[in-house]
Amino acid sequence: MSKMVLTVGEILVEIMATTKGDGFLEAQPLIGPFPSGAPAIFIDQLGRLGTPAAIVSRVGDDDFGRVNLTRLAADRVDVSGIEVAKGEATGSAFVRYRTDGSRAFVYNIAHSATGKLSLTPESEALMAQCDHMHVMGTALSAPGLAEVAREAVERITARGGTLSFDPNLRPEILDSPGLREALDEVLARTDIFLPSGEEIYLFTQADDEDAAVQELLDRGVREVVVKRGNQGASHFSRSGRADAAPISVDEVDPTGAGDCFGGAFVSFWLAGASPETALRYANAAGAHAVTKMGPMEGAATRDQLDALLSQAEG
Amino acid sequence: MSKMVLTVGEILVEIMATTKGDGFLEAQPLIGPFPSGAPAIFIDQLGRLGTPAAIVSRVGDDDFGRVNLTRLAADRVDVSGIEVAKGEATGSAFVRYRTDGSRAFVYNIAHSATGKLSLTPESEALMAQCDHMHVMGTALSAPGLAEVAREAVERITARGGTLSFDPNLRPEILDSPGLREALDEVLARTDIFLPSGEEIYLFTQADDEDAAVQELLDRGVREVVVKRGNQGASHFSRSGRADAAPISVDEVDPTGAGDCFGGAFVSFWLAGASPETALRYANAAGAHAVTKMGPMEGAATRDQLDALLSQAEG
Repeated sequence: MSKMVLTVGEILVEIMATTKGDGFLEAQPLIGPFPSGAPAIFIDQLGRLGTPAAIVSRVGDDDFGRVNLTRLAADRVDVSGIEVAKGEATGSAFVRYRTDGSRAFVYNIAHSATGKLSLTPESEALMAQCDHMHVMGTALSAPGLAEVAREAVERITARGGTLSFDPNLRPEILDSPGLREALDEVLARTDIFLPSGEEIYLFTQADDEDAAVQELLDRGVREVVVKRGNQGASHFSRSGRADAAPISVDEVDPTGAGDCFGGAFVSFWLAGASPETALRYANAAGAHAVTKMGPMEGAATRDQLDALLSQAEG
Repeated sequence: MSKMVLTVGEILVEIMATTKGDGFLEAQPLIGPFPSGAPAIFIDQLGRLGTPAAIVSRVGDDDFGRVNLTRLAADRVDVSGIEVAKGEATGSAFVRYRTDGSRAFVYNIAHSATGKLSLTPESEALMAQCDHMHVMGTALSAPGLAEVAREAVERITARGGTLSFDPNLRPEILDSPGLREALDEVLARTDIFLPSGEEIYLFTQADDEDAAVQELLDRGVREVVVKRGNQGASHFSRSGRADAAPISVDEVDPTGAGDCFGGAFVSFWLAGASPETALRYANAAGAHAVTKMGPMEGAATRDQLDALLSQAEG
């Protein structure tokens, strides 16, 4: 039987500005709603690759909830743990790129349906069923999500399940009360740690990468996978290091690339692939993701990844 | 001194689909954020006509709040009663027209910043200062807004202030607990009642217009102004009836027209204009409003109304 993956966290719609500039201070052309939310993108990538996967989350009883439920179900994600909250609104994120590549956001998350998870019979059933848990730092940093996310970590690892962890954090929120402790607790049980770029230093005393990796391995993390955006990726474990070279693609929209990378890595890892193979496909999934407008639109099938790899390595 | 008008109610941004169809089940072209919310549109129309005006409301500390604050202040509306709520999201309404002219919505109001008003020193100061209160039914029907709206009615009418009331209600919400009583209480004190089309029958036993008007006048309403969309408008009082003929314009977006109509009527009424004159300008304000995309974009200046009337009547 294939192992089943659970994540807990936010489901959103994303609305994108189609012009660059600073924020949303006047009416302007937009496109959306795109299904979104980092945990949702991650789990959708697993579904597209055929790995059994589920998400515990909450949406409103509105079109924005339905656009997510429909997409996730179509990609074979188990949506039984997504509660539909009458009278509440599905979370949303408006995003506009500035000319320097940075982004301005307008969020509705904390007070939206997805900001208030609680244990339900459906979510508890998934925690009893799944073999692997993936934690997004965004879920741990949101008060209304953290408790259920930590409960899922607890229950799945207690049954011998494995754990992956993508910090996905802005450094400034690390000062939130209790967050650092929650992150350290999760990190102590992490099999696969998936930081992007500088995020590796959020959890270490070291200030060069090799030393930071060593520090993490010494603390019990089994594998460290460093995502470097359009610079490729690296895998570290006690057995050594593997690297994946950058894949050159036309970048349309980088949002979601790290989440697709993580989903692909976990999919191949759980299926028993070597670190090199898992890293190679994950790197391709990240590259594929940026070629589509919309955060979840670039989640790739196995065929699409094979085609991209054969073209890149051909 | 000019009399000052207060309203209490929701401030939103509106995001509009630029194609017709049924809802938001897939990514599509949109335009926004437009400043919106029926009470906000009403009060903005008063500001554009130079009548002192203020609104008690609440927005998030985000670009969607700022787009409203900036617009209202630019149109000389007193924004001191708009609370900026840290960590909360500004309310929003997504709207898409169907091919039959009906509209599909996705709302975030009840759990947004605007859904939770409470008395503040600033809102109480405005209640002590204003000479006229305008009630939108939307505010009375929202639990988090109704208490402050009723308090404003109480305080302003107790000081001898006048009251206008636009029901702006969908019939199905009239069954909400306590709503009917709140509406009847407001209606009993209403100087100017501004129903659209069939709304007049929500408050009467009668089922023809003349009888319904008579019933309302008998209950103490001083003036009844029936808005008929692109069919013109009528004014009724114990002194008789006046009518305004339709004004032919190119309709781009009807949202907000009734609110602009109401704002213009109250502006002229408070300045001492005859019912015929107030009705004529209100009718022009409604016609002007539909010529612009965006609910508040078509609020007109006095010069714009004079130009439209001279063209229509010329």
